[in-house]
Amino acid sequence: MSKILVFGHKNPDTDAITSAIAYAYYLEQKGEEAEAVALGEVNEETQFALDKFGYQAPRVVDKVANETDTVALVDHNEAQQSVDDRDLVSIHSVVDHHRIANFETADPIFYLARPYGCSQTIIYSLFQEADIAIPENLAGLMLSAIISDTLLFKSPTTTAADEKVGQALAEIAGVDLQAYGLELLKSGTNVADKSAEEIADGDAKSFEMGNHTIRIGQINVVEVSDVLDRKEEILAEMQRLSVDNDYEAFLLIVTNILSNDSEGLVVGKEDLVPAFQTAFNGQVTDKQIALPGVVSRKKQVVPSLTTEIESL
Amino acid sequence: MSKILVFGHKNPDTDAITSAIAYAYYLEQKGEEAEAVALGEVNEETQFALDKFGYQAPRVVDKVANETDTVALVDHNEAQQSVDDRDLVSIHSVVDHHRIANFETADPIFYLARPYGCSQTIIYSLFQEADIAIPENLAGLMLSAIISDTLLFKSPTTTAADEKVGQALAEIAGVDLQAYGLELLKSGTNVADKSAEEIADGDAKSFEMGNHTIRIGQINVVEVSDVLDRKEEILAEMQRLSVDNDYEAFLLIVTNILSNDSEGLVVGKEDLVPAFQTAFNGQVTDKQIALPGVVSRKKQVVPSLTTEIESL
Ligand SMILES: [Mn+2]
Ligand SMILES: [Mn+2]
Repeated sequence: MSKILVFGHKNPDTDAITSAIAYAYYLEQKGEEAEAVALGEVNEETQFALDKFGYQAPRVVDKVANETDTVALVDHNEAQQSVDDRDLVSIHSVVDHHRIANFETADPIFYLARPYGCSQTIIYSLFQEADIAIPENLAGLMLSAIISDTLLFKSPTTTAADEKVGQALAEIAGVDLQAYGLELLKSGTNVADKSAEEIADGDAKSFEMGNHTIRIGQINVVEVSDVLDRKEEILAEMQRLSVDNDYEAFLLIVTNILSNDSEGLVVGKEDLVPAFQTAFNGQVTDKQIALPGVVSRKKQVVPSLTTEIESL
Repeated sequence: MSKILVFGHKNPDTDAITSAIAYAYYLEQKGEEAEAVALGEVNEETQFALDKFGYQAPRVVDKVANETDTVALVDHNEAQQSVDDRDLVSIHSVVDHHRIANFETADPIFYLARPYGCSQTIIYSLFQEADIAIPENLAGLMLSAIISDTLLFKSPTTTAADEKVGQALAEIAGVDLQAYGLELLKSGTNVADKSAEEIADGDAKSFEMGNHTIRIGQINVVEVSDVLDRKEEILAEMQRLSVDNDYEAFLLIVTNILSNDSEGLVVGKEDLVPAFQTAFNGQVTDKQIALPGVVSRKKQVVPSLTTEIESL
């Protein structure tokens, strides 16, 4: 077996990047040879966390079979969110907190999923179980992912385990959880310098619903007008991306991290629009739909939209 | 949420039955309401273990949505090995030691798979982690599954964890591991009173390989002639089952638990036969193929056969 390459999903967020770093470190402590890599460039929020705790961004790969025969997945499992040549390598293990779909192995593996708000909360339990100490800077990085995925414990995906582990990690890292949390979340909200593509697609994931490929992006802001002022430009970009990549619909969730509400922008096939309206109990007007109280793609968007699109 | 029904795979073996009992007990200790049920009648070996440690066989169900909205799976995950109406209920959790395939959830769940020889070895670790004591009779039942799945630690699926947990459980249960182990394995080898269908299909599972449905059964004996003396009758039964259920091939592995070798009986589409020959590096003669050293369906049969059938 060659070195295990560890990575999170495409369009990596802070959890995808830092969970790869933490799980690779864990595997090394357990006597494996492992390296964290990334399926894309880090975003501003993640860069802020890496800088704060003295880490380099993992190198970016777009395939893996040319350099290893074994990989480990964190923060994802679905094939379309993973490395393109995954079928050519064996999967050593998976640590994830998402639904399980489009995932298959030929042999038994270690697979640990828990319905927590963040992959790092699960990885923390692995460190505990194996009695491996978490270095101060790694604790800060792991904490950053929990803050990011749970929107500082405001997202409905947050569990008691996330809060408990977040507090434990803040203590190890020696940071003030609330102050650092807001600072980290705000670091990712500067959209002025971002292109329309970065805004729409920077954090987007593809989902198979029924027989349809639906793209769902999310962007955090402190004022939704930062994004909505550029609505036409962004819609045009979502349209272009849909045509180029055969997405049948594209939803961008613009989330206000202070009020914990969102606005949705939607492009896509006309016959899919009713599913969005039913799923979110609202009207799509001028390709926009209010999503009051929605902050979690995983918990408040994907399940209901899947149900509605599958029943079309 | 109604009571969680916990069950192992169809055609239950000792691990499927006793893991359901152990995991339901674990869930109850964690404050859930749970009941172990079975997707079929228990076999002789399992009945021997249940009698020895004072348990009743779980009640048999063939659907679940009429009585609950939530289930937990042990010792399997693939849809075709599970309850027929699984799509109508939510899956609370999975504890398993098989490959992951034909499995999908709408929401994040607790999923724990480890590449161990037996599901009970994983369940034991859950008891440890939660600091829940294992009652003496339950320890005996859990041990029985480890003996059964690993053929008393002779199967190549056996890991150091299985041996260690087996010894710990034998101590709690107060049984002599070797003596009880052989007694248990022999209890399942009496084929004289079994019908050809019970021999061929009693422990069989279906696998999707490429686009083919392959049925694979296994029977433990102390003399392979106990089964091979009835070869024509059993082949005819395998043929009948294949026609009735659209299996494109049916392999019965007849395993000598003392010598740890097997003989295979094969019926099925002619164009699939070469895959069996390549997978097991031998000749199919008179619908029979020698499988020297083969005792594990999961580790020594399914992966190589999957590879060969998919590459046809
Ligand atoms: Mn995550
Ligand atoms: Mn088993």
